[in-house]
Amino acid sequence: MTEKGMYDIAIVGGGPAGLSAAINTAARKKKTILFYGDNDSQKMSKAPKVDNYPGIPGVEGKDLRQKFLDHVREFDTELVQKKVQNVFPLDQGFQLLVKDGFYSARVVILATGVTVQKMLEGEEGLIGRGVSYCATCDGLLFKDKTLALIDHTREGVDEAGFLSKVCTKIFYFCMYDDPPSFGEGNIEVVTGEEPIKIVGDGSVSALQTDKRTIAADGVFLFRETYPPGELVTGLEIDENEIKVNRQLETNIKGLFAAGDCTGKPYQMAKAAGEGQSAALNAVAYIDSLQECGD
Amino acid sequence: MTEKGMYDIAIVGGGPAGLSAAINTAARKKKTILFYGDNDSQKMSKAPKVDNYPGIPGVEGKDLRQKFLDHVREFDTELVQKKVQNVFPLDQGFQLLVKDGFYSARVVILATGVTVQKMLEGEEGLIGRGVSYCATCDGLLFKDKTLALIDHTREGVDEAGFLSKVCTKIFYFCMYDDPPSFGEGNIEVVTGEEPIKIVGDGSVSALQTDKRTIAADGVFLFRETYPPGELVTGLEIDENEIKVNRQLETNIKGLFAAGDCTGKPYQMAKAAGEGQSAALNAVAYIDSLQECGD
Repeated sequence: MTEKGMYDIAIVGGGPAGLSAAINTAARKKKTILFYGDNDSQKMSKAPKVDNYPGIPGVEGKDLRQKFLDHVREFDTELVQKKVQNVFPLDQGFQLLVKDGFYSARVVILATGVTVQKMLEGEEGLIGRGVSYCATCDGLLFKDKTLALIDHTREGVDEAGFLSKVCTKIFYFCMYDDPPSFGEGNIEVVTGEEPIKIVGDGSVSALQTDKRTIAADGVFLFRETYPPGELVTGLEIDENEIKVNRQLETNIKGLFAAGDCTGKPYQMAKAAGEGQSAALNAVAYIDSLQECGD
Repeated sequence: MTEKGMYDIAIVGGGPAGLSAAINTAARKKKTILFYGDNDSQKMSKAPKVDNYPGIPGVEGKDLRQKFLDHVREFDTELVQKKVQNVFPLDQGFQLLVKDGFYSARVVILATGVTVQKMLEGEEGLIGRGVSYCATCDGLLFKDKTLALIDHTREGVDEAGFLSKVCTKIFYFCMYDDPPSFGEGNIEVVTGEEPIKIVGDGSVSALQTDKRTIAADGVFLFRETYPPGELVTGLEIDENEIKVNRQLETNIKGLFAAGDCTGKPYQMAKAAGEGQSAALNAVAYIDSLQECGD
């Protein structure tokens, strides 16, 4: 793990809320880093026509996204294509864990969107008890065990490679088109089969699909985003929405959230507006810390 | 007073929040009317350069406003240049009073912005006790009396004409460039003099300026917007901000608010985002009424 840099503001997510936040923090001269994923903002990119983003009528989603990206690039913001695996609140500021190191920031704005895929039955209760979202973090706990790995994003391909060196057997559930090949080895690619339920009493014992039940000691899931409560321990969540007040503050000091991850309506202007509010409130928060001699 | 029509949604205010709301309610096929004033959205129109409205970098405020207006006009929304003087909550829906009649609507979205001019000392405590914002509503209470009329918007020119037929004498404080001429009569135009305080014990007795104290039985004020608590009786206000929850609902059922009138940051994207949220939540509210057989 290497220290990758210190920022005023780290933004997690490259959809309309995150990009709007970045425009606003950078315009206020705060040193900003924005993390975006391979599959960020699918909803925006795939929208055939957006009719209700004020000022840009009848625009294709991918063109609107491009306009946002071009706008961000007019400012001095670092855009980094890495998935943030964990956000750790410290006494002062935050650390953001990525695969190959960590970044530090005084404030964090979560703009992670909502995961299209619902949680599986049994998943939530078994988080940390066999259910995991991060091979780097948890892989070694599964030495000589059998795993199921459910991959919606292709991110799991590398992760399966890493885990296969540790554990005995991996059932790799490919949830996207064009399944990968792992060659001969202990990874079995499963297609056309739908995971339904994670089974376990205290810890994971099996994955139930629409066709069978597979005995497994752990289940790894790779989706577009982490469940927000899993991304930041102690973050207050209400039915999969991050709880924020009118200032877009979460229950954790210095941690803001904006866009779809804070609840409906799931719309571009709402997300962009919240990104802006979160950004400007975050800037004011940083300035207040500095006034206090922090 | 004549009944002017029945609408699903009435929007009060033609700045970024109101226009964004109108785009969204009209896109959802709700019969919408939007009221805007002569001086609406001065802040937007006069901004030399807006850098942080995502997707349209470095735009002049007046051009951004034009883009919003063009966007609204792509839908079937009625835009009406009339100032709303009062919003009355009824058992079901609302009545909106304008100078020459009233409109009815099932829900109302307030997007009135913030008044640049602060309230005068003494003003708030004397509302309804000599302080008024509406000659049509209150003029006849001042028969054979002396009035001060403070006009920031030119709206007071007609109002002074009307009041002059009722009362004995009007001191017309012109707070904008290019003072009007009322000819010979009982209206005295005052320029270069700053109203400071409204004086009265129980009811208005005088207006104090930076130069003198003028005995007066009433003070009429015409600003860009009414104080929101004066526009809707019973509306919960907190330090001149309309109190809303995350759904942009006020304390009055069916009444929403969006944009600067709900608090800082005073920014276009924030206003547009809230206009969208308020609109979509208002649409959902109307649909829920209809499901209940209302």
